[in-house]
Amino acid sequence: MQIQFADQKQEFNKRPTKIGRRSLSRSISQSSTDSYSSAASYTDSSDDETSPRDKQQKNSKGSSDFCVKNIKQAEFGRREIEIAEQEMPALMALRKRAQGEKPLAGAKIVGCTHITAQTAVLMETLGALGAQCRWAACNIYSTLNEVAAALAESGFPVFAWKGESEDDFWWCIDRCVNVEGWQPNMILDDGGDLTHWIYKKYPNMFKKIKGIVEESVTGVHRLYQLSKAGKLCVPAMNVNDSVTKQKFDNLYCCRESILDGLKRTTDMMFGGKQVVVCGYGEVGKGCCAALKAMGSIVYVTEIDPICALQACMDGFRLVKLNEVIRQVDIVITCTGNKNVVTREHLDRMKNSCIVCNMGHSNTEIDVASLRTPELTWERVRSQVDHVIWPDGKRIVLLAEGRLLNLSCSTVPTFVLSITATTQALALIELYNAPEGRYKQDVYLLPKKMDEYVASLHLPTFDAHLTELTDEQAKYLGLNKNGPFKPNYYRY
Amino acid sequence: MQIQFADQKQEFNKRPTKIGRRSLSRSISQSSTDSYSSAASYTDSSDDETSPRDKQQKNSKGSSDFCVKNIKQAEFGRREIEIAEQEMPALMALRKRAQGEKPLAGAKIVGCTHITAQTAVLMETLGALGAQCRWAACNIYSTLNEVAAALAESGFPVFAWKGESEDDFWWCIDRCVNVEGWQPNMILDDGGDLTHWIYKKYPNMFKKIKGIVEESVTGVHRLYQLSKAGKLCVPAMNVNDSVTKQKFDNLYCCRESILDGLKRTTDMMFGGKQVVVCGYGEVGKGCCAALKAMGSIVYVTEIDPICALQACMDGFRLVKLNEVIRQVDIVITCTGNKNVVTREHLDRMKNSCIVCNMGHSNTEIDVASLRTPELTWERVRSQVDHVIWPDGKRIVLLAEGRLLNLSCSTVPTFVLSITATTQALALIELYNAPEGRYKQDVYLLPKKMDEYVASLHLPTFDAHLTELTDEQAKYLGLNKNGPFKPNYYRY
Amino acid sequence: MQIQFADQKQEFNKRPTKIGRRSLSRSISQSSTDSYSSAASYTDSSDDETSPRDKQQKNSKGSSDFCVKNIKQAEFGRREIEIAEQEMPALMALRKRAQGEKPLAGAKIVGCTHITAQTAVLMETLGALGAQCRWAACNIYSTLNEVAAALAESGFPVFAWKGESEDDFWWCIDRCVNVEGWQPNMILDDGGDLTHWIYKKYPNMFKKIKGIVEESVTGVHRLYQLSKAGKLCVPAMNVNDSVTKQKFDNLYCCRESILDGLKRTTDMMFGGKQVVVCGYGEVGKGCCAALKAMGSIVYVTEIDPICALQACMDGFRLVKLNEVIRQVDIVITCTGNKNVVTREHLDRMKNSCIVCNMGHSNTEIDVASLRTPELTWERVRSQVDHVIWPDGKRIVLLAEGRLLNLSCSTVPTFVLSITATTQALALIELYNAPEGRYKQDVYLLPKKMDEYVASLHLPTFDAHLTELTDEQAKYLGLNKNGPFKPNYYRY
Amino acid sequence: MQIQFADQKQEFNKRPTKIGRRSLSRSISQSSTDSYSSAASYTDSSDDETSPRDKQQKNSKGSSDFCVKNIKQAEFGRREIEIAEQEMPALMALRKRAQGEKPLAGAKIVGCTHITAQTAVLMETLGALGAQCRWAACNIYSTLNEVAAALAESGFPVFAWKGESEDDFWWCIDRCVNVEGWQPNMILDDGGDLTHWIYKKYPNMFKKIKGIVEESVTGVHRLYQLSKAGKLCVPAMNVNDSVTKQKFDNLYCCRESILDGLKRTTDMMFGGKQVVVCGYGEVGKGCCAALKAMGSIVYVTEIDPICALQACMDGFRLVKLNEVIRQVDIVITCTGNKNVVTREHLDRMKNSCIVCNMGHSNTEIDVASLRTPELTWERVRSQVDHVIWPDGKRIVLLAEGRLLNLSCSTVPTFVLSITATTQALALIELYNAPEGRYKQDVYLLPKKMDEYVASLHLPTFDAHLTELTDEQAKYLGLNKNGPFKPNYYRY
Repeated sequence: MQIQFADQKQEFNKRPTKIGRRSLSRSISQSSTDSYSSAASYTDSSDDETSPRDKQQKNSKGSSDFCVKNIKQAEFGRREIEIAEQEMPALMALRKRAQGEKPLAGAKIVGCTHITAQTAVLMETLGALGAQCRWAACNIYSTLNEVAAALAESGFPVFAWKGESEDDFWWCIDRCVNVEGWQPNMILDDGGDLTHWIYKKYPNMFKKIKGIVEESVTGVHRLYQLSKAGKLCVPAMNVNDSVTKQKFDNLYCCRESILDGLKRTTDMMFGGKQVVVCGYGEVGKGCCAALKAMGSIVYVTEIDPICALQACMDGFRLVKLNEVIRQVDIVITCTGNKNVVTREHLDRMKNSCIVCNMGHSNTEIDVASLRTPELTWERVRSQVDHVIWPDGKRIVLLAEGRLLNLSCSTVPTFVLSITATTQALALIELYNAPEGRYKQDVYLLPKKMDEYVASLHLPTFDAHLTELTDEQAKYLGLNKNGPFKPNYYRY
Repeated sequence: MQIQFADQKQEFNKRPTKIGRRSLSRSISQSSTDSYSSAASYTDSSDDETSPRDKQQKNSKGSSDFCVKNIKQAEFGRREIEIAEQEMPALMALRKRAQGEKPLAGAKIVGCTHITAQTAVLMETLGALGAQCRWAACNIYSTLNEVAAALAESGFPVFAWKGESEDDFWWCIDRCVNVEGWQPNMILDDGGDLTHWIYKKYPNMFKKIKGIVEESVTGVHRLYQLSKAGKLCVPAMNVNDSVTKQKFDNLYCCRESILDGLKRTTDMMFGGKQVVVCGYGEVGKGCCAALKAMGSIVYVTEIDPICALQACMDGFRLVKLNEVIRQVDIVITCTGNKNVVTREHLDRMKNSCIVCNMGHSNTEIDVASLRTPELTWERVRSQVDHVIWPDGKRIVLLAEGRLLNLSCSTVPTFVLSITATTQALALIELYNAPEGRYKQDVYLLPKKMDEYVASLHLPTFDAHLTELTDEQAKYLGLNKNGPFKPNYYRY
Repeated sequence: MQIQFADQKQEFNKRPTKIGRRSLSRSISQSSTDSYSSAASYTDSSDDETSPRDKQQKNSKGSSDFCVKNIKQAEFGRREIEIAEQEMPALMALRKRAQGEKPLAGAKIVGCTHITAQTAVLMETLGALGAQCRWAACNIYSTLNEVAAALAESGFPVFAWKGESEDDFWWCIDRCVNVEGWQPNMILDDGGDLTHWIYKKYPNMFKKIKGIVEESVTGVHRLYQLSKAGKLCVPAMNVNDSVTKQKFDNLYCCRESILDGLKRTTDMMFGGKQVVVCGYGEVGKGCCAALKAMGSIVYVTEIDPICALQACMDGFRLVKLNEVIRQVDIVITCTGNKNVVTREHLDRMKNSCIVCNMGHSNTEIDVASLRTPELTWERVRSQVDHVIWPDGKRIVLLAEGRLLNLSCSTVPTFVLSITATTQALALIELYNAPEGRYKQDVYLLPKKMDEYVASLHLPTFDAHLTELTDEQAKYLGLNKNGPFKPNYYRY
Repeated sequence: MQIQFADQKQEFNKRPTKIGRRSLSRSISQSSTDSYSSAASYTDSSDDETSPRDKQQKNSKGSSDFCVKNIKQAEFGRREIEIAEQEMPALMALRKRAQGEKPLAGAKIVGCTHITAQTAVLMETLGALGAQCRWAACNIYSTLNEVAAALAESGFPVFAWKGESEDDFWWCIDRCVNVEGWQPNMILDDGGDLTHWIYKKYPNMFKKIKGIVEESVTGVHRLYQLSKAGKLCVPAMNVNDSVTKQKFDNLYCCRESILDGLKRTTDMMFGGKQVVVCGYGEVGKGCCAALKAMGSIVYVTEIDPICALQACMDGFRLVKLNEVIRQVDIVITCTGNKNVVTREHLDRMKNSCIVCNMGHSNTEIDVASLRTPELTWERVRSQVDHVIWPDGKRIVLLAEGRLLNLSCSTVPTFVLSITATTQALALIELYNAPEGRYKQDVYLLPKKMDEYVASLHLPTFDAHLTELTDEQAKYLGLNKNGPFKPNYYRY
């Protein structure tokens, strides 16, 4: 286990990257800059000095089993939650359907995720389904203080605030787990920090834990490593790779956020611009489709011949980056790879070329190579740097090579709704599964539940599903209620 | 003339609407919220009390023939101008081409436009072509103080600041015109206020004036009225209806800004949303194309059967608003008409429906009808109101029905470059025309100049035009240098 | 007049080109190859020897005032007409609306057009509106014998068959005009041959003629020449340039027929193919949009900077033909110009490059330059030639450079319906206009009628037009029934 | 085994359906109607009487080890093969690369596929790689006699002609297998008939057989059944489900062929038409994208909520068929299901509604229900029937509900090239695999070979793949030469 924790420390130091995880909500960027600025600044300034850990706070029911920035912000947070509820109909439907049965009755869930209005809707849904919850933040910056306050006010033991120190971070997690007379039997994790804390500090707890639900790429990777090493001692559900989540997080979401991110940062016009998109996976496909539709001329680079052939059939010239680097107006990376855009490429770009990253992390553009004395950096706006060559050439670097769609755009609530619903269903599945169905291994969400998540979101579009007749179901050899496709189906 | 001035007074009172004119630059929205906030707040706060009219300011060359907020902001403004220059290659090309000839040598231009970085590039181009300029703002809110300072610093007599009173407004215009030993011989106007001031106060000036170049719909309308009434005493050029300007201001610009405006205000997802677009002119065509490409389901309403048939052939269901009002997620008006969306429609919309206007003015949505006691207004963000019905239904009203693309988005510099180049060429044309070519009437830009504006912008796209051979030109009966199309050509 | 006739002789010799006119119907290509092959071959073969002029034929009512190939084919033709009627709802609606009033009562129309099922629907509509008609073919090849028979059977004096000689052609026209006791008072012409015959042979007839309606580019050109020369002695209506007709004949129709024409001739796959489209007018815009949508990579060449800028904003690289000629898989011309593709270009194309023309005539590709001894021609299918270079390189030339969409595709009935309705309305307008409204000049269709044509076609799409309220009409300064746009509006 | 054979008999009787398999080439439809009609009719008519089995034929080298319609047609067939070679660069590249090594040296392949020009290129490639081949047709109608002749002439023992009887069919297969002194060691099958013949008649042959490569859905299904039953006695490769084949056979191919099939049969215009597409799998996605791009308004029906959500996000209204059946102009099925369009639906369609099937077989539209006395069938063209209701309503039924894209369109050679290359690589893989790598089971093509097929087709598009650097490969944990994706990757 010691090695695991060492890994984790290292991970923590990379945290600025981790902010880039794909599950931040619109409210994060919004509330800090915009709608509640007056309220926020009032309360923030008055409280700035004192650490939440040193404050004595009680909610209106007298409880003090929480630790948030300022319980008085609860009302603002409640409004945010109510707005989010309107855009998360699937969770609201779950609440209704489960009103009688309470499929999570008896569940004691400890969670560690971003604390946003959408998470709050998830938590309150879990509560409505019968679960008890305790919650910490999975990121030191992403907590919405107002929302945390609203949750604390309505009785959820929440331990999180914006701007935690590393010590605060682990303290908060510990406060969720290390409780007199309460022991979790389910884990909902985003990044794996909670899981690892329990592994390290309270390994005995796993005896009572029925399962782990993990959302992030990083956390899933850790679980597979544990499993490989034979150290995974409860079933775990990888919800990151469910079909619905993947398509929405990548293809559909990026198709919109590439435009949004570029507009908000540069106010550029897309029509007639030459763009090279590195990588033609789901993210690349979304970016290319959007820019083509807006009148850009798009080139694609790929390493995989199958994706390359798809790019051709979709109408994009497949090139090596070198072939077009001198002529393009925009370079977008979405490969998941490292050093896709090198200093050499950057040297050859034309004046005013925009460079940004939509991929997995901040490794795709070799930003470090631009930190040399002969280049001048000029911050022209938040998230926008001009890097200036000695001859006056400027490169417009967005978000310092971090994820454009998270740094400079927002994730629509609808996408977060898909994720949250998937998490809720995974918890229900693991909690209610007959003993022995799930072993000490990492599982994908059963296809039927993936389909169920999708079906819960159809009413948003007033979409009417067709039902198989008995005769048709028999002809196809399918159950009328699904699952409808073999596991290898590619959608 | 008296009647004219009365009109103008009335117009002035409608000024909040006029802010919505389509030529505001990105810098307006940007600088007030973002990049220069620190600098701006510093200088703004220190100066706030004193009116610029009461201050004694000199530029570094010792001149005090200007009136701006704070001459010390010149450096910030200069940087904005330099950035704009990079995106206005056509004007820069004009400067180069005309270096020898100075086609505006002797021209004394008085101008009244928005004072932005893009206008500054225009003014300095006019200067480089040989003209002397004096300038006022056509709008009391739109002046970028830093840019005005930069212009004053480099020797332009500029009289403008953000937040002028009505009295300031006319005082500034008067300071441009009423000068010892200097009399304008050209007018560049945007809205017609400058023209009308001269008509009213200094009608004799028109004897020396060679022509008026007018950009706005409103100003052009006034000129046609003057012409009809036989009161137009110099030639005027309507640059508003040039092909290039129209296509860029409407079709191409709105195709992008509808998405941008909706995203910045609501962070909504476009995919799967049902949208009704009222009006299928150039603006409507742009909105529909963009939303369709993003996966929305778009309905169109139209009154003109030809445009209606175009909508059909482009793949949109043509409906009456009533037929779909209950089911749509977004209502967008772009008709130029009034009361297209009535209270009755608003009453029938579903919860969370978004309502906004991309059309000509703030008349299209009957916003006034929503100011009734039973409805609650809640401002949730800048430019975003929730109007709440007694039963809890919320309508999301953007920009209070004013132009979404100006209020909540930005106009790309490239579009402004088209306009500015058109203005410059119109000034050159009128100034250099042999006597008698233009009478006391309103003219459209000659098609050849329209084509020239376009050709100056092609290098931006690395676009290579084909030239006719002599044989081909003869076959087509065309001059090799254009114009290439009959006047009625529809593009 | 003599010069005119000389022109006409020359025109006649160019007739193979004229076949390419844009108004041939689906039935032409169809019936000759497909559906009625058995019937057709039966009757054709039996009659082949005798010229229709030498046959004695009577319809079932005993009339012999017609000359067609074989009156016995009437039943086949009637079925074709009935099918066409279903796709020409606008004309059928006209029939119904005009049942009471008979707006063409007293009209004696002599017509000279392609004789197809769609023309038959037009003729029978004119009849239903009160007119008497006599008809000849405007093209020696395009007559559908079955349809001509059906018209003759139902009492129309029709003089036309497929495969007329030049002498037959003028004989037929003469038989329409030169009748005892009947003199036309309206002319409906397509190409101007009928008009010129009357000018030459029976100039006195024009005293009673109320007007000419002309559809073709060529015929309209002739009329403008006559008008310029002061020789036009009746009003003429140019229906070729009506908005609706232009958009459907060019943009909408070519968007579909470029794909159809290429598929039928070459069975090629569009995805990933590199295509250069010469000319970005309405036809070019249609071709580019379609191919882009199918996954081709499209380059555009243009001479007009405005259209060039449109191509850029629509997402196409603007190039000179030379820059891409070595790499493209397909070359499509739609310029209306000559020698756009020269032998030099053809020499440089890569193996298997497809070359075709969607433009105005067969001049765009210099096909003559390929008739040299070192090149081998191989006809691989109807309308498809391989031209083979000494080194084995093959160019795939479609339709020998004639119009692809007419030679290798079909014009949808819906497009012909637009044209026919426009013709009918133009006839009604000219026939009923109060004296003096139209002078001896060439007129465009009044915008209101253009709008009416459009409105008659909306029901096909179940499209519901919105009506202006009185208040709105007043606000816009418009009549509630249109016209809705200024004449210079570009749609 | 007996049961298997019984199945097979039944299958044979369903043969008319089997014609619909997706591998027929363009040449089939073409040669029978078009290019070689003269030659074909000459030879066909002269030979019609005699069965090929009763003829004595020799090729120019004196061999008579073949049975084709007419060896004299060899020259025509050779030209077809040469044309196909130009469009199958991947196989030609394989020939070149393998010139030295001969990876199929010693292979004795017996094949049973459609006999077309493309198959001929495959066979001659296998020959060039060192294999000996004997070949029969997998379909009694699909053989191109000229191509079979050309193969026989160049020395391939081919036993196939167009219009075989059932007895002929099995006789031909037997002649391939039952040879003195020659025994196959590889099987290439399309439909499973050859495999089953050997199972039934010569089970001992399997001792020497190294593997089976099977292409069709049906054949693969049979193999899985054999495997399940423990009766599969050699390794088999399912090439039907390779990524590249699936995407090209379904998504990319149908995107084009839906338009082609509808145009060739009905000459309809797509713009403004209302279409319902049943099923949103790969085929449905292709159809919807194409029709949307052409200006149709498209509705989708689905049973699977995930695909349904995709349809929503792609901009299509998801409906039940009943909701739109009265209003649509076209109904397209692509579900793989049965009775998707019932008589009840057909009764409610509007006049002139077009009904067609792009799905798996002829079961989707309940055509049988239309064979009732009160309905009149009228064949208006080849593949086009009007079904007429007593009240005169007509439904336009295409291809009697069979596959539109095979019946009324053609499969581009490029798509067949993908399939053929996949088959060749699968044969090489199985033939050269070290003993024990493949057991007696059904395998998917290794991803690396799937990628190789794709890479061989990239040069067609002048597409340039990027190579991973060593550093990048290490970072990603990939081999630089692939495979590049996990098996569950969805593309």
